[in-house]
Amino acid sequence: MELLKQRILQDGKCLSEGVLKVDNFINHQIDPQLLMSIGIEFARRFAYARATKILTIEASGIAPAVMAGYCMGIPVIFAKKSQPCTMNNALQSNVHSFTRNNDYTITVNSDFIKPTDRILVIDDFLAYGSAANALINIVEQAGATIVGMGFLIEKDFQNGGKMLREKGYTVESLARIEALGKDLIKFCD
Amino acid sequence: MELLKQRILQDGKCLSEGVLKVDNFINHQIDPQLLMSIGIEFARRFAYARATKILTIEASGIAPAVMAGYCMGIPVIFAKKSQPCTMNNALQSNVHSFTRNNDYTITVNSDFIKPTDRILVIDDFLAYGSAANALINIVEQAGATIVGMGFLIEKDFQNGGKMLREKGYTVESLARIEALGKDLIKFCD
Repeated sequence: MELLKQRILQDGKCLSEGVLKVDNFINHQIDPQLLMSIGIEFARRFAYARATKILTIEASGIAPAVMAGYCMGIPVIFAKKSQPCTMNNALQSNVHSFTRNNDYTITVNSDFIKPTDRILVIDDFLAYGSAANALINIVEQAGATIVGMGFLIEKDFQNGGKMLREKGYTVESLARIEALGKDLIKFCD
Repeated sequence: MELLKQRILQDGKCLSEGVLKVDNFINHQIDPQLLMSIGIEFARRFAYARATKILTIEASGIAPAVMAGYCMGIPVIFAKKSQPCTMNNALQSNVHSFTRNNDYTITVNSDFIKPTDRILVIDDFLAYGSAANALINIVEQAGATIVGMGFLIEKDFQNGGKMLREKGYTVESLARIEALGKDLIKFCD
């Protein structure tokens, strides 16, 4: 997606080897107009998938997932990073964050995913695929089907996308990054 | 906002005295079409305010804030509940959660709020006003101006709205609840 790639080149910052900071337009400050364009693009790429629900993780996945859900006319569920005190019937899975070097548990209320659901997974980053695997695990626990996985930015060199594609998932990344380094952001295509 | 009130009556659940659960359309599963209507309503109510940015808190504030930001054509900043390892120049403030009975710190990168900014605060719930006060505190630290505060649901009986209005803020709540109890959701108007 050319618009996103241009914005990454303009406003993204590569802090250290392998870390891309996009907190001025995606994951701390958000540009809602860009996010709507992203929602439209996901709706176009996954038009074939007949998804019934979108699943994402708080917090950075919410904006793109809600825009995609708006464009596709389907509900969005965001997995929570702490289990709310008012939730029963929790589906849970573990995520390892390489950026923060810690583990956390994500939780989804099982009432919201039925075995008949066709789930589109959306998230901001695809790196090693730890969060994606946790979302897959939750959908499997619910007995539902994953019909696609969409990411804003895939860090190709961290191999999460390779792992998901080898498992047979349809992965669409709007910007695939081949290499990141000081003053270097190189896209795959 | 009649659409939101009807949806609260249809899908909201009052779990215990004073607690309203709206996790099947607002803060766990999200109805993006409803959220867009909410964004349009905020844009209409705050059209006079000439806001330059919207400030909210992760995670439940993000969807309504992004929809409002889209309709108003301005960026959205969401305060983070944990300080990211890659953030310098952090503005911070404390929030007490009465629902969870704990305290947490919210953080905003000071690069994103300038003294010339006219900030519209958006959040899902207004109860005692603890989160709202923390957002006000962060805007004050940045030397910017708050031009309005918008909430999806105000629990009138918990007096956060009274406190904010007495401080002189323009508060717009799309559904104001007068009383909550077993099988009772009573709106103010």
